[in-house]
Amino acid sequence: MTRTLASRAPRQPLQRRDFLARSAAIAAATGLAAGAREATAAEAPAVAPAKPPLPPYVAWKDANSLIVHTSSTIETRRSAFGASVVTPSEQLYVRNNLPAPDASIVADRDAWEVSISGVKNPRTMTVRELKTLGIETVAMVLQCSGNGRGFFPSKPSGTPWQVGAAGCVVWSGVPLRRIAEVLGGVAGDAKFVTGTGGERLPAGIDPKAIMVERSVPLSAMADSMLAWEMNGMPIPLAHGGPLRLIVPGYTGVNSVKYIRQLAFTARESEAAIMSHGYRLSPPGTKGAPDQPSVQEMTVKSWINTPTADGGPVRAGDVQIHGVAFGGLNSVAKVEVSIDGGKTWNAARFIGPDLGRYAWRQFAFAARLPAGNVVLASRATDSAGNVQPEQRFENAAGYNNTSWLDHSVRIVVA
Amino acid sequence: MTRTLASRAPRQPLQRRDFLARSAAIAAATGLAAGAREATAAEAPAVAPAKPPLPPYVAWKDANSLIVHTSSTIETRRSAFGASVVTPSEQLYVRNNLPAPDASIVADRDAWEVSISGVKNPRTMTVRELKTLGIETVAMVLQCSGNGRGFFPSKPSGTPWQVGAAGCVVWSGVPLRRIAEVLGGVAGDAKFVTGTGGERLPAGIDPKAIMVERSVPLSAMADSMLAWEMNGMPIPLAHGGPLRLIVPGYTGVNSVKYIRQLAFTARESEAAIMSHGYRLSPPGTKGAPDQPSVQEMTVKSWINTPTADGGPVRAGDVQIHGVAFGGLNSVAKVEVSIDGGKTWNAARFIGPDLGRYAWRQFAFAARLPAGNVVLASRATDSAGNVQPEQRFENAAGYNNTSWLDHSVRIVVA
Repeated sequence: MTRTLASRAPRQPLQRRDFLARSAAIAAATGLAAGAREATAAEAPAVAPAKPPLPPYVAWKDANSLIVHTSSTIETRRSAFGASVVTPSEQLYVRNNLPAPDASIVADRDAWEVSISGVKNPRTMTVRELKTLGIETVAMVLQCSGNGRGFFPSKPSGTPWQVGAAGCVVWSGVPLRRIAEVLGGVAGDAKFVTGTGGERLPAGIDPKAIMVERSVPLSAMADSMLAWEMNGMPIPLAHGGPLRLIVPGYTGVNSVKYIRQLAFTARESEAAIMSHGYRLSPPGTKGAPDQPSVQEMTVKSWINTPTADGGPVRAGDVQIHGVAFGGLNSVAKVEVSIDGGKTWNAARFIGPDLGRYAWRQFAFAARLPAGNVVLASRATDSAGNVQPEQRFENAAGYNNTSWLDHSVRIVVA
Repeated sequence: MTRTLASRAPRQPLQRRDFLARSAAIAAATGLAAGAREATAAEAPAVAPAKPPLPPYVAWKDANSLIVHTSSTIETRRSAFGASVVTPSEQLYVRNNLPAPDASIVADRDAWEVSISGVKNPRTMTVRELKTLGIETVAMVLQCSGNGRGFFPSKPSGTPWQVGAAGCVVWSGVPLRRIAEVLGGVAGDAKFVTGTGGERLPAGIDPKAIMVERSVPLSAMADSMLAWEMNGMPIPLAHGGPLRLIVPGYTGVNSVKYIRQLAFTARESEAAIMSHGYRLSPPGTKGAPDQPSVQEMTVKSWINTPTADGGPVRAGDVQIHGVAFGGLNSVAKVEVSIDGGKTWNAARFIGPDLGRYAWRQFAFAARLPAGNVVLASRATDSAGNVQPEQRFENAAGYNNTSWLDHSVRIVVA
């Protein structure tokens, strides 16, 4: 069991905003120093002990809450997740398939254009115009397809995310169904919603080999939107502003950033990121179109407090808490184990319910004896699906929902 | 009608996070420059055209979203409020009755101590110990008692807040009822919950004249908590960290920051901020204990989009949206007028419902003709109370819920 458990050495207590309170400039440096002091997860050696600083396009984020894998792959620390449901933007993970576009694209957000096709009256619309059509707000779990990859003992290539390539985010924008309605309705043969990102592609490479273009089933359209706001502010460049396709219940890659084209299509995109990337292929094989695409999320939970980050946990009463979500379904139940999964206890949900696509915070009051303790959580969705004990093995390390992999080993003293 | 309507000259489009994306240090300067370019509200002349910079303890906030009145009174711009329900911490208003304590108090948050009395077994507890007792999460409107004071033509002394001394904030902490339970129950004669702030008081002044100590009725205890987390992160110093008393449904002053003493008392506090401050006294009089204290909030709403901030609004379709809340009650209904209150139309709620103490976002799709247009919103709470047309006149400009005062005058072109 121990092979897949994340454990970390003690480190300095987080101070986060308090650093920022002194000076934004000092904070960046201080946060970096604190990060560099931190030991890496035992089972995720690809996290370099000496971490790179926050890249300039996310310099506004809270360095103390984050693990910088590369300039385009940045993870939230497990111990940084709070109990307030919505993940603050400055803590939210970043995963860009291509380098973020130049910041000039957010200089005049309302002027950004997206072409819409596969409708009776295809045309190009600006964000300014989209804002006149309608507005809706949805809270949803944004989770990278590879979140939990760091727990695969096979060490698949790709970022070794633990739990922090996920967050619960609130988006505002215009529903796709409203856009389609305004443009005369979806074309009769459409089976997919296909979004194309606005990243600048390098010359000399077949665009299909590198472009970010993803298709989701037309059924996903019901709750999808083109969003211009995230957590109460214009979407930051790092998260797809000025305009992002939001597909609730689906993994993050399907919510295409900097969206330039929205198409209702009869066929899936032929871009490599769709046809060969993000496929659930057997270990040792490469992704291919005949293998399942990584799209809908399924039931999952994990504990964020306590972790081993703060050193030994004091024996006695403790409030164990974490997050649980159902993917396309709402989450109905969470159980917590303090004996590595031998016995389970009902946890309670705390705080507001932000809807079926959001995660819920759960809590369980336990009395911990001294010694080595393994904490685990196991969620059940509204359809009765139970979070599995074991991960589904696949070549690229996608969709890890194993409660065993996500359990927490602590020393209680 | 025009005398109380806020109107602003056109200004540069906000870029906010995008500035930050370039460099945190540059961002602070740039944000300030943008702020300085901005015209002030016509009816709130106390907002100086050349604004002071963000003070160091809130340097991490988004300068472009804020109006700095003084170093301890900072307001969210009406046009900065988004549609995502929760107000991001970097946009949230600040109002400190005394200067914030030294940042050293958040160096070891878990070591902060609060004394608890008026229970069978009074004692002092650390945040570390409080965290073992229980955890709950509540979303609530945090609103300064004087929010809307800037619309009083009488120009009461105090910060001339318009709409932005308010936000919807998520707090996590331990319920007061749980604390009382652990300590043997509340004393038999207790009628109030009294919280005392931990600010350092200047020497040579009677502490009662300056200390922050507030009492709320014991009934408020049901949903109150001692909180250590705000919007997913440890409570920033500016907002009362490491520990704050949270009293949902009551104005902000009742949620005592840096709480050092929590007492279940037979009498209200005798501190001046309770006995004479925050009293609803007739115009021209001073506050006194025999006048009503400013405590429970009542039903209120306002429109955030469109405003006059971006210059003339384009004629045609527009999505009008804003926020509405009921104070102690949940909000049940919002109506919108595009003719200054002559006729009203039902608005719809958008986004998740975070509970009775939170605000809800509302939206109404309208087609605006060219010309001068006055937009207004009017909310009704779950008990049938309707937001009034007129403010309740009082000396200090508290509790302004007038829909007329909060209406928006725009030019449609």
